Amino acid sequence: MKKLYPVFSFCLLLFISIFSYSQSIAEKLGYDKDSKLLIIHADDVGVSHSVNSATIKAFEKSGISSASIMVPCPWFPEIADYVKQHPQYDFGLHLTLTAEWKNYRWGGVLSAKEIPSLLDKNGFFYSTAEEVAIKANPVEVEQELRAQIDRAIAFGVKPTHLDSHMGSLFTTPDLFQVYLKVGAAYKIPVFIPMNAVKTFPELLQYINEDQIPVDNYFMMQSNRPSDEWTTFYQNIVENLSPGLNEIIIHLAIDNSEMQAVTVDHPDYGAKWRQNDLNTVLSDEFKSALAKNNIKIISWKEIKDLLHSDY
Amino acid sequence: MKKLYPVFSFCLLLFISIFSYSQSIAEKLGYDKDSKLLIIHADDVGVSHSVNSATIKAFEKSGISSASIMVPCPWFPEIADYVKQHPQYDFGLHLTLTAEWKNYRWGGVLSAKEIPSLLDKNGFFYSTAEEVAIKANPVEVEQELRAQIDRAIAFGVKPTHLDSHMGSLFTTPDLFQVYLKVGAAYKIPVFIPMNAVKTFPELLQYINEDQIPVDNYFMMQSNRPSDEWTTFYQNIVENLSPGLNEIIIHLAIDNSEMQAVTVDHPDYGAKWRQNDLNTVLSDEFKSALAKNNIKIISWKEIKDLLHSDY
Repeated sequence: MKKLYPVFSFCLLLFISIFSYSQSIAEKLGYDKDSKLLIIHADDVGVSHSVNSATIKAFEKSGISSASIMVPCPWFPEIADYVKQHPQYDFGLHLTLTAEWKNYRWGGVLSAKEIPSLLDKNGFFYSTAEEVAIKANPVEVEQELRAQIDRAIAFGVKPTHLDSHMGSLFTTPDLFQVYLKVGAAYKIPVFIPMNAVKTFPELLQYINEDQIPVDNYFMMQSNRPSDEWTTFYQNIVENLSPGLNEIIIHLAIDNSEMQAVTVDHPDYGAKWRQNDLNTVLSDEFKSALAKNNIKIISWKEIKDLLHSDY
Repeated sequence: MKKLYPVFSFCLLLFISIFSYSQSIAEKLGYDKDSKLLIIHADDVGVSHSVNSATIKAFEKSGISSASIMVPCPWFPEIADYVKQHPQYDFGLHLTLTAEWKNYRWGGVLSAKEIPSLLDKNGFFYSTAEEVAIKANPVEVEQELRAQIDRAIAFGVKPTHLDSHMGSLFTTPDLFQVYLKVGAAYKIPVFIPMNAVKTFPELLQYINEDQIPVDNYFMMQSNRPSDEWTTFYQNIVENLSPGLNEIIIHLAIDNSEMQAVTVDHPDYGAKWRQNDLNTVLSDEFKSALAKNNIKIISWKEIKDLLHSDY
């Protein structure tokens, strides 16, 4: 019997691996196989006081289940202070390599000397993901992403997940690999939206069983008229597929600060963000979620599967 | 006669120097000897959108005659864009070595590797001028001040003057010398408030005829009740001495952004700044200036005496 023990252990491990691999993400998280899981996720936290206030309001009124923070932005310390005092809310990092506004800009956590390929002549990040794709040196990207994570941790944030502001890290295989590598190094789950990634099949080869991809992600179009918000989100909720889903929303109070942040920028404005806030706080949206038997989850539950130290 | 020419030239120069030295600043600027000159000056421009909006409003409604910009702050690009389009208004630089707010911080224009003595462990400036006095390496201070001026010029700002946020550059003889040196190097006048400097006589030896000191500066106390604003400023105006005077005010709109910038900071809050804005726009203040025959001037007129290239 003693001699058989190693063989038995090996078979047990094999069985567990196969079983665990074949389990759906819903089952791994303790839900029925065909559950419709949904993360309601607010991006761009830390950009401005307006965004921070709207995000906090949405958490406290159960309008969202997760959010991600932009560490290089001016209002990062405010949200970090809130996160430390409210560990019950789910905050990840919105890894940032772009600064898209006209008169309100930011650079990296690292200095211009350390990440020259990521910054324009004024020391700010480029405005678009396309410029990042063309100009970014992946070695500098990795250093900057690690610096953003390290800074968040130093400020008392324990990131539940990582994602990518304006999708910069999905623009080239090199940058995508850096993104996965950094997530693995910190054992923090990374957001991989399969419905988007499938349109860029070159990236698929880098996804393996260590990652937990999101089957479908959804986001409001940038130029939609205000009166279509309810219909747009209700359609998503009513047609949600089983599996892991994420709705990405952009919250802000439509006030003078946010109007100035987004000035001369035709899309993604202050009103557009206020519409998202109004929607997730609305009774219509909340009752649509309940009626369609959607299971609202957060990234923390996914992170727990990875046994992260952070 | 030819031989006498150098002697004549020398005498003429001597005469001009003596005459010019003996002229009061009012006379140099084309006013009567005993004129009461006053610069109404708004500090802290660039800190927030709220401060920028209030400062622009005060310029456009003739409530102020000058202002100074904090280059390292998040809203610097917004005000730089405005300055470029409105060269008629008088903007200098509020040289910045401190970041005094709790959850809204900034570091230098230079990186942490270049100015380690100026930054805390998070890469932000220290909160107080006292910490700057103790920790700042004057060589790094000079580099950072030059970087702030160079960045302003690169953004299209032609600074009419330099002054010092929270008075950091008046805290030690070493820092004061750096301040004067940088002003001289760029031929930009530096704000030297004689009524304050006289309380720290060690600084007096560094002031020479190349500088144009301000005889008296005035500023609202940080904890004054709101109903005393009118009296406070009317007293200043009614008792103004002949010579060069400056009232330093702090403008902002008392809104959610500015309340968040100044959160948990007992003094210099959003309401305090709104009170200053209300005062300089008020009919009472404007008629007090007129009644007391105050000549409102800007730093541009002083800068013109220095024949600066910028």
